[in-house]
Amino acid sequence: MKVSINLTDLATQIGAKLEGASNGDEPILGITTLTLASKQEVSFFSNSLYREQLAKTSAAAVILASKNRHFCKVPKLVMDNPYLGYALTARLFNPPPRYLPGIHPTAWVSTDAIFDESTVSIGPQAVIEAGAILGCDVVIGPSCVIGQGVKIGNNSQLIANVTLCAGTQLGQRIIIHPGAVIGSDGFGNANDAGKWVKVPQLGGVIIHDAVEIGANTTIDKGALEDTVIGVGVKLDNQIQIGHNVQIGEHTAIAGCVGIAGSTCIGRYCMIGGGVGIAGHLELVDHVHVTGGSIVLQSIREPGVYSSGTPLELNQRWHRNYHRFKHLDEMARRLQTIEKKKD
Amino acid sequence: MKVSINLTDLATQIGAKLEGASNGDEPILGITTLTLASKQEVSFFSNSLYREQLAKTSAAAVILASKNRHFCKVPKLVMDNPYLGYALTARLFNPPPRYLPGIHPTAWVSTDAIFDESTVSIGPQAVIEAGAILGCDVVIGPSCVIGQGVKIGNNSQLIANVTLCAGTQLGQRIIIHPGAVIGSDGFGNANDAGKWVKVPQLGGVIIHDAVEIGANTTIDKGALEDTVIGVGVKLDNQIQIGHNVQIGEHTAIAGCVGIAGSTCIGRYCMIGGGVGIAGHLELVDHVHVTGGSIVLQSIREPGVYSSGTPLELNQRWHRNYHRFKHLDEMARRLQTIEKKKD
Amino acid sequence: MKVSINLTDLATQIGAKLEGASNGDEPILGITTLTLASKQEVSFFSNSLYREQLAKTSAAAVILASKNRHFCKVPKLVMDNPYLGYALTARLFNPPPRYLPGIHPTAWVSTDAIFDESTVSIGPQAVIEAGAILGCDVVIGPSCVIGQGVKIGNNSQLIANVTLCAGTQLGQRIIIHPGAVIGSDGFGNANDAGKWVKVPQLGGVIIHDAVEIGANTTIDKGALEDTVIGVGVKLDNQIQIGHNVQIGEHTAIAGCVGIAGSTCIGRYCMIGGGVGIAGHLELVDHVHVTGGSIVLQSIREPGVYSSGTPLELNQRWHRNYHRFKHLDEMARRLQTIEKKKD
Repeated sequence: MKVSINLTDLATQIGAKLEGASNGDEPILGITTLTLASKQEVSFFSNSLYREQLAKTSAAAVILASKNRHFCKVPKLVMDNPYLGYALTARLFNPPPRYLPGIHPTAWVSTDAIFDESTVSIGPQAVIEAGAILGCDVVIGPSCVIGQGVKIGNNSQLIANVTLCAGTQLGQRIIIHPGAVIGSDGFGNANDAGKWVKVPQLGGVIIHDAVEIGANTTIDKGALEDTVIGVGVKLDNQIQIGHNVQIGEHTAIAGCVGIAGSTCIGRYCMIGGGVGIAGHLELVDHVHVTGGSIVLQSIREPGVYSSGTPLELNQRWHRNYHRFKHLDEMARRLQTIEKKKD
Repeated sequence: MKVSINLTDLATQIGAKLEGASNGDEPILGITTLTLASKQEVSFFSNSLYREQLAKTSAAAVILASKNRHFCKVPKLVMDNPYLGYALTARLFNPPPRYLPGIHPTAWVSTDAIFDESTVSIGPQAVIEAGAILGCDVVIGPSCVIGQGVKIGNNSQLIANVTLCAGTQLGQRIIIHPGAVIGSDGFGNANDAGKWVKVPQLGGVIIHDAVEIGANTTIDKGALEDTVIGVGVKLDNQIQIGHNVQIGEHTAIAGCVGIAGSTCIGRYCMIGGGVGIAGHLELVDHVHVTGGSIVLQSIREPGVYSSGTPLELNQRWHRNYHRFKHLDEMARRLQTIEKKKD
Repeated sequence: MKVSINLTDLATQIGAKLEGASNGDEPILGITTLTLASKQEVSFFSNSLYREQLAKTSAAAVILASKNRHFCKVPKLVMDNPYLGYALTARLFNPPPRYLPGIHPTAWVSTDAIFDESTVSIGPQAVIEAGAILGCDVVIGPSCVIGQGVKIGNNSQLIANVTLCAGTQLGQRIIIHPGAVIGSDGFGNANDAGKWVKVPQLGGVIIHDAVEIGANTTIDKGALEDTVIGVGVKLDNQIQIGHNVQIGEHTAIAGCVGIAGSTCIGRYCMIGGGVGIAGHLELVDHVHVTGGSIVLQSIREPGVYSSGTPLELNQRWHRNYHRFKHLDEMARRLQTIEKKKD
């Protein structure tokens, strides 16, 4: 299916103001980068790194903010949030693929699973265990494993090779990428004279509507209560979320983040790549932690937070690295000198 | 199956002393949090964060340490290690599920695999390659892949979608969570004038008894000798263990830890979440590395070790971050001033 | 199949000079460590940690550099790069296993997939979707999922449980270990008044020849253009590579590294374990980043780079950790004192 739309209609659809077009009737066939765009494609400008490409683009039009209009020689689609304009345009030209409903002959589906075969699509080699309940238009990709009693809301999609452990509950319009594991046991061990005794993990995982979960991300079920991922949360790849964690609505978390058990993260937070967050902490709404930071204490105020030291040439780094061991001593020596001066 | 036990018997089973109960005959149906517990459930108190909930609980009884008795108005199950009491109680009420023995019709099992069909359970879409040997009561969950010549000891369980590469050896009572990969090639490459030549990985992986391995954790096989995980080791999710690593008995490792090749970790160690440990190091017994630390040198003495810098508001962090580049120079300038004073 | 070769021929094959052998006719059956080697096996010495074992070895011969000849009492295979000699010898004695061509009866292969059944091997429970094109001698291990339109070049091998999402393109002689996910959606979200709107990921992933990809590593497809992994790149386990990343030829990346979107890494780089690299950066050729470092800015010059602070006993670390918050203030106070002295 190939979508075509003219510039005037595109402007309307994405909420932009068309400027500098000769008539607006030109058919547009897609969106791509400033460099690659042909005269039948639009592009967008939302990162000042690409100013040079903006000046040279052959695009039919460029989605951009008002303040950047004068850098652009081709027609403009002016809007406050050009990156959103890009997203909306890309969605317009690339609607998600439609899946034919039905159960693939190599899938194994328990007779005790509940779903409407006329809307649900179950791919090759998938497994649907007893008691699973799938909503309308759910897509279960190849090799997915849906454990006992799992619930999946309408229009949710598991791309491939996703494992939902027994009892996991998913809302509607959820997307889960390959290799993700949801609802595995939390890491609970009681120490008995040096040996570890496993603590049964009796809680569940609740994933609310419109969540997206990246490849090889893992979310453990709760120990006694549930692990809860709020509406609209976006999780990148290779994230680890411990038992009883709660993540507030519309928070976005980049790749390789680890969140230890029982930590509660607020709404509208942004957690950068590779961040580590200790257990039993609380982060309020609108906290932004930059990539690579380690969070060992609760964050009570909104704001942008960071930790870490700069990258340097190894030889130079090595000298500073060793001095760090004596930072407290240096501070005391500085104090001593200051006192002597008085 | 629903378990019921009275308070007096529960106390005996977990090694606690029952105090403050009117008769001890009350049937108990489970264990949950202080807040959620009904009069037919017990709870536990092992983290001082929850003191307020302890005062308000309606639980039939609370497992707690002697020193906290006076904060609790309901009957008490007093013992030195209440978290262990919680674990034991939770196990009592939630015995692991029983699996029906047999081979699922969609599983593929080599005729050269060796096991007792009357006790082993093999789930849907699983693969058991030639020469695999499974002990009694082994459970292979859906979509697991058991490579050639793998050995699995009695009562071990692979939840789902676990990959055991050829030659991997597991002991008894092992639990492996979904997405884990055991016995993949170590990262061995020899440099030949800029290009990399793969070093065949000829060793194996030996996982001893009572080990638990988390979701999406990876353990590489050895280059020439074996990678060895000791008895009772507990590994959380998304851990990477390089070739030839050895981990001593009863060591516990939290999520997102990476351990580079040939490193040897002692017994009874605790490695916090997100820790990175370089290769060819040795950590003695009873070492505790706190979350987010980077270990670049061997640790020869037991103790608690840490690295890293504090999280701060980005603007403030930025100033300190840049000063770090001049730490060595600062130390020299401080010395100069101190000398001048003399 | 058991390989046997005499010392003289082995020396020729690996480009070493045989020294100290009585006749060179001795049949050699394998290569192992200095400690384990019998009189029918060779060993190698490339890490000075093992000098003691070199003195005591019973190996038939030891591959070593000229400068270490005098530490060795047994015959020597002298060459500049003994670790390469080890790799070549190990390959000689352990040629990769041969796979019987054919489609396993439990695999599901679309009738619209294109490949030569007389050379390709497809394992149990694998899935090959429509439009996939597999080259000669391709091996698809058990439970792999090959998405629509995927292309795989000659002699490439997917060990087991690998997911290649729709459109992924692999070159020749590629090895991918279990749990790896290639071509999943990049993490693209536009913010619309607090809520996230998914940006369709329309690019692809191109993996060039002779790349090796470790267990549970993830590589996202591009947003508009492609994610590209260059010839001969070696990726360890649990690496996350974001959308539009480019990695130059013969770069090696150790486990647990995360590379955020649109970053471009040069050729012949070495990235240590656990390194995090922010998005939209450029690293030139021949950059070496040591393990555990965080890279927040582009690297314009070749060299060895590091970041981070030393591991210390927790109590001592804690004091220095807190002082870091006042580093900028300390620097100012030092300046004040210096000025007063003038």
